[in-house]
Amino acid sequence: MIRVGIVGATGYAGLELVRLLLEHPRAKVTYIASKGDAGRDLNEIYPFLKGHFSMKCEDFNPERALAQADFFFLAMPHGLSGDMAPKLLKPGKKVVDIGSDFRLDDAAAYEKWYKMKAAKKPDVPTVYGLPEINGDAVKNAVLVANPGCFPTAVVLGLYPLVKRGLIDSQGIVVDAKTGVSGAGRTPAIGNLLVEANENLKAYKVGAHQHTPEIEQALSKAAGSPVTVVFTTHLAPLSRGILSTAYGRLQSPAATADLLNLYRETYREEPFVQVMPEGVYPGVKEVLGSNTCMIGLKVDERTGTVVVVSAIDNLTKGASGQAIQNMNLMCGLEETMGLPRVGLIP
Amino acid sequence: MIRVGIVGATGYAGLELVRLLLEHPRAKVTYIASKGDAGRDLNEIYPFLKGHFSMKCEDFNPERALAQADFFFLAMPHGLSGDMAPKLLKPGKKVVDIGSDFRLDDAAAYEKWYKMKAAKKPDVPTVYGLPEINGDAVKNAVLVANPGCFPTAVVLGLYPLVKRGLIDSQGIVVDAKTGVSGAGRTPAIGNLLVEANENLKAYKVGAHQHTPEIEQALSKAAGSPVTVVFTTHLAPLSRGILSTAYGRLQSPAATADLLNLYRETYREEPFVQVMPEGVYPGVKEVLGSNTCMIGLKVDERTGTVVVVSAIDNLTKGASGQAIQNMNLMCGLEETMGLPRVGLIP
Amino acid sequence: MIRVGIVGATGYAGLELVRLLLEHPRAKVTYIASKGDAGRDLNEIYPFLKGHFSMKCEDFNPERALAQADFFFLAMPHGLSGDMAPKLLKPGKKVVDIGSDFRLDDAAAYEKWYKMKAAKKPDVPTVYGLPEINGDAVKNAVLVANPGCFPTAVVLGLYPLVKRGLIDSQGIVVDAKTGVSGAGRTPAIGNLLVEANENLKAYKVGAHQHTPEIEQALSKAAGSPVTVVFTTHLAPLSRGILSTAYGRLQSPAATADLLNLYRETYREEPFVQVMPEGVYPGVKEVLGSNTCMIGLKVDERTGTVVVVSAIDNLTKGASGQAIQNMNLMCGLEETMGLPRVGLIP
Amino acid sequence: MIRVGIVGATGYAGLELVRLLLEHPRAKVTYIASKGDAGRDLNEIYPFLKGHFSMKCEDFNPERALAQADFFFLAMPHGLSGDMAPKLLKPGKKVVDIGSDFRLDDAAAYEKWYKMKAAKKPDVPTVYGLPEINGDAVKNAVLVANPGCFPTAVVLGLYPLVKRGLIDSQGIVVDAKTGVSGAGRTPAIGNLLVEANENLKAYKVGAHQHTPEIEQALSKAAGSPVTVVFTTHLAPLSRGILSTAYGRLQSPAATADLLNLYRETYREEPFVQVMPEGVYPGVKEVLGSNTCMIGLKVDERTGTVVVVSAIDNLTKGASGQAIQNMNLMCGLEETMGLPRVGLIP
Repeated sequence: MIRVGIVGATGYAGLELVRLLLEHPRAKVTYIASKGDAGRDLNEIYPFLKGHFSMKCEDFNPERALAQADFFFLAMPHGLSGDMAPKLLKPGKKVVDIGSDFRLDDAAAYEKWYKMKAAKKPDVPTVYGLPEINGDAVKNAVLVANPGCFPTAVVLGLYPLVKRGLIDSQGIVVDAKTGVSGAGRTPAIGNLLVEANENLKAYKVGAHQHTPEIEQALSKAAGSPVTVVFTTHLAPLSRGILSTAYGRLQSPAATADLLNLYRETYREEPFVQVMPEGVYPGVKEVLGSNTCMIGLKVDERTGTVVVVSAIDNLTKGASGQAIQNMNLMCGLEETMGLPRVGLIP
Repeated sequence: MIRVGIVGATGYAGLELVRLLLEHPRAKVTYIASKGDAGRDLNEIYPFLKGHFSMKCEDFNPERALAQADFFFLAMPHGLSGDMAPKLLKPGKKVVDIGSDFRLDDAAAYEKWYKMKAAKKPDVPTVYGLPEINGDAVKNAVLVANPGCFPTAVVLGLYPLVKRGLIDSQGIVVDAKTGVSGAGRTPAIGNLLVEANENLKAYKVGAHQHTPEIEQALSKAAGSPVTVVFTTHLAPLSRGILSTAYGRLQSPAATADLLNLYRETYREEPFVQVMPEGVYPGVKEVLGSNTCMIGLKVDERTGTVVVVSAIDNLTKGASGQAIQNMNLMCGLEETMGLPRVGLIP
Repeated sequence: MIRVGIVGATGYAGLELVRLLLEHPRAKVTYIASKGDAGRDLNEIYPFLKGHFSMKCEDFNPERALAQADFFFLAMPHGLSGDMAPKLLKPGKKVVDIGSDFRLDDAAAYEKWYKMKAAKKPDVPTVYGLPEINGDAVKNAVLVANPGCFPTAVVLGLYPLVKRGLIDSQGIVVDAKTGVSGAGRTPAIGNLLVEANENLKAYKVGAHQHTPEIEQALSKAAGSPVTVVFTTHLAPLSRGILSTAYGRLQSPAATADLLNLYRETYREEPFVQVMPEGVYPGVKEVLGSNTCMIGLKVDERTGTVVVVSAIDNLTKGASGQAIQNMNLMCGLEETMGLPRVGLIP
Repeated sequence: MIRVGIVGATGYAGLELVRLLLEHPRAKVTYIASKGDAGRDLNEIYPFLKGHFSMKCEDFNPERALAQADFFFLAMPHGLSGDMAPKLLKPGKKVVDIGSDFRLDDAAAYEKWYKMKAAKKPDVPTVYGLPEINGDAVKNAVLVANPGCFPTAVVLGLYPLVKRGLIDSQGIVVDAKTGVSGAGRTPAIGNLLVEANENLKAYKVGAHQHTPEIEQALSKAAGSPVTVVFTTHLAPLSRGILSTAYGRLQSPAATADLLNLYRETYREEPFVQVMPEGVYPGVKEVLGSNTCMIGLKVDERTGTVVVVSAIDNLTKGASGQAIQNMNLMCGLEETMGLPRVGLIP
């Protein structure tokens, strides 16, 4: 049984880890830390856990953590895991960082987009943990940078096209929509139900910090620089990301052929489902699951391919993917303990 | 492995059975019937099932059904399972009827409230499948009438008080709120998002067909007739029932003592969680789970006890409870394959 | 043209005043104050006002206020208007307090339920501004205590029954549901869309501070003490209150007769609409309007009358009613500038 | 007082006309027709109108209609107004068609995208009623084709750029999101709250019938053919359209300069509001109003301008704009009777 420690257990990503790991047959949460709620049982903060999970949050302390657990998930605000991870990477210990600190190769890009200092490079190699692309490297990693929620949806949606060079690599338009849980549990006026319900708005236009992460992943796939125009929207949902991406085809292509390419690319991937022609996924179809659903259509009039991909931002976009990475890093079945179908209806 | 047949697989209760049974270690769906969708794969109707479940819906035929499966769930509109169940109750076969046909002992009451003819009594005993109250009878049953969604929430909420005779048994006020999935998948104007979102309204005031079922269950618990004033409201939710019940105390009682009585009553019940004083459950806390959460408070000024109980109407209020019954009827662990914590956040 | 000052202009009640007064033919906002946002134009905080309303918020200062405006609305948190109102009640000036400071006659009750010191009684008479009951007194008032949102819905719903003594005056059950805007604009975790959407929960059971206000108004109507069991629920709505009240009839009565009594009682009231038998209002039907819609049904089996009343908590439940009071206090048509139909669909 | 007839009064666009015209000082609804509900009072179908509006729906009959009213709004499904309008266009009579029958110049395009026969050209000139662009022509028209909801948002959002030739005219990406009321009041499973809430999905990708209307309007503005890649999404909202459009700039431009161009273009337009730099409208900000709010940003890295425009699909996107056209056609103030600020919060 893997002894799991969660740092940042009371935020939404942390809670999602607890919820999912309750059902994991080979892992057990044995340590939880939370700065703000040290001393409180997690089930006091979240009464729905009563009867199912009981553990006191601690103030993070590396010695305590290392004594209590062997596998760590860091679910902290930006800028905190950079210092924390190296303290936990002792022999036999492994870390998945759900935060952004280790995702970008280019420190200058981090500083430009996050407007904070980049983390110091750790002594061990950091693997970008998008298993559908990087699975082999993940298997051998001790430190994995879990992808951001938007990059997961966008990169899975565009990867087959970009890798084959089928679309113009410059200025790919990505119009993304997210539920409010993406903003975390810290209260802000704009995230109140009163302000967000029956509403829909763009934010951080041209300025979202996930832009360089998307471009880095797609550039690696293409073998040359890719740029995206990336717009995020806040939708009146709790969970879910829908990415609608528009690629200008380098040469005419049929919808059916591109769908086949996608099916081929993701044939072995348990968490990617490619829809039939004419079917586009809704975010509710992946609610609470670790699945990414993809649909696409060629708009022949304009030579554009439109790719729609849907994930649950807290599951495949954060904690589910983190557990998927844990499974790979620990030699377990990739799908272990992870729901594959959404909560419909 | 139990071979399971679902009649009425494309409605919400049927789909919920499929979704839950996908994760059940000892049961497997081997037969699905749906009048309207015969010939279509269920994953055509529900694309989120693609890659996870594939089976063609059949037009219901008892011989085919009996050949393909051993345990049947009937998830049909009122008035259909009464004829169907007896055809399936052959040696070695068992049935849980999620519909209302076998729930009421009193045919006249059925006809009055449902405004249709009551089903003929079957040859085998019918057990009312609320396992927290009737679990022993369920274990030996071959035909179980699965409780209605409202009765599940209301009866679990009031049972300890009524059994002990602690509240006035006449005119217990029950103010219940339900999500829209309770109305099923047949489209109706009032259930459109446009009409139901940002809305909340009472319906069937004094006329809801679950009234006699609630009164029957509470009367049996009390050992004498109980009446309720039962008002249902449509809330802008997909799933969930919240019941707020008001009992006039026969003599003064402390909140803490009543909470203890509830904890005692449900001590062995894995799917009932009693909250601490001052905590009242929200329906989202049981979303997608088979749990009923209960909170209560004595209003000393008026000598009233207010009991709040929450369930997911499709899980504990329908298909989850049906599987809980199946587990008991088949000698399996009661909790097998059933989620216990809700999808939070 | 009435020169209107709003103290607390940036909260939801303040904003609702601005929005409604934009269309008022005889009043004009000439002064706005807001502690937190002094110096900012209201349309910076609320960009949807751009092009329609522009005015800088000031830090409240009685001299400035008295120089700039003649009629004041106080839309502040509890405990602040008690000191403020007397400073504004100079000759020729009038005040409607949307807060709770002047609503209760009994200071001890205020202190018990609000857990803070009651305001000092002002030198002028304070009129409880529920115009359908107290309209004549409002016309002559210079200081009006605007009713709370729940009391508006509950008292209008029960007034005809209580005044005639048709129901048991003790322990009337009132099950109320409110949208999230009732909690104001200060961010709190429980009011985030993520926490409140697809959720529904009871809060302050037996402890809501509007209880004594409801009892005071109903007791005055009855001419003797009335008590209520009052439970509030948070529903996943932005706006709207639905009150479902349960009265034990003193003697049998027909639904149609009680509906006639209601129609008779409210015959002259432009903002109360009594529904036909079998029709119960939904909160969306009064969205953004100053109307209270009422439906009722006698449950003959239990001798209970169920009364459902719906208002928009920010309009009839706060700022719309405040303007209705202003209209009466200033000798204008009661309905001036106030929407009467909701935003449907 | 203009005597107004509404054909198709019980659908959402028809109801919105009734709701808005209740407050119009110079027009009065004197005739309503509805195929399905002939003989019923509109306030039976919509109880929130009780006390405010009462009129029986008739089966459409041109003689009756012409006798009862002088100005007609047609709010019918596609393909019906083409025959109906000519019958109403008698001397002194005027018509605004809210349907699509008269919007496209090119009958072949109509047949291709709507998959039905185009309407016969009427004897009088048809004016495309987007008043911000075509206002002078509208003033003199007797038959106005009211724009579609998406085209209103998209064309107002792109017009200044396209007219000046500042962006590549081919393959402009338009990612649009709509509330569910756009689908009308006919029940469909996908529009049930249960299916649409907490969901978000693309539909009619590359195939939406509003595409040729958008291209026609933009091509006229540009003076040469414009093409768009147009994707529509269903968002869990009742009302509102958000259009996010992506134009590849022909040469570098600053956000501030483009915003100035927009302000200049719409300087005289009461129903278009251009936001300051960094502010993007949310659909709730225009809820129930006839305003279109626009924000934009240049993404310098990719040479793309991102334009976000928001309208209420039933008001500016349908019935409000129809009344705006009526005002112009009848020589009234353009803004008469039309709300300019949304229902916030």
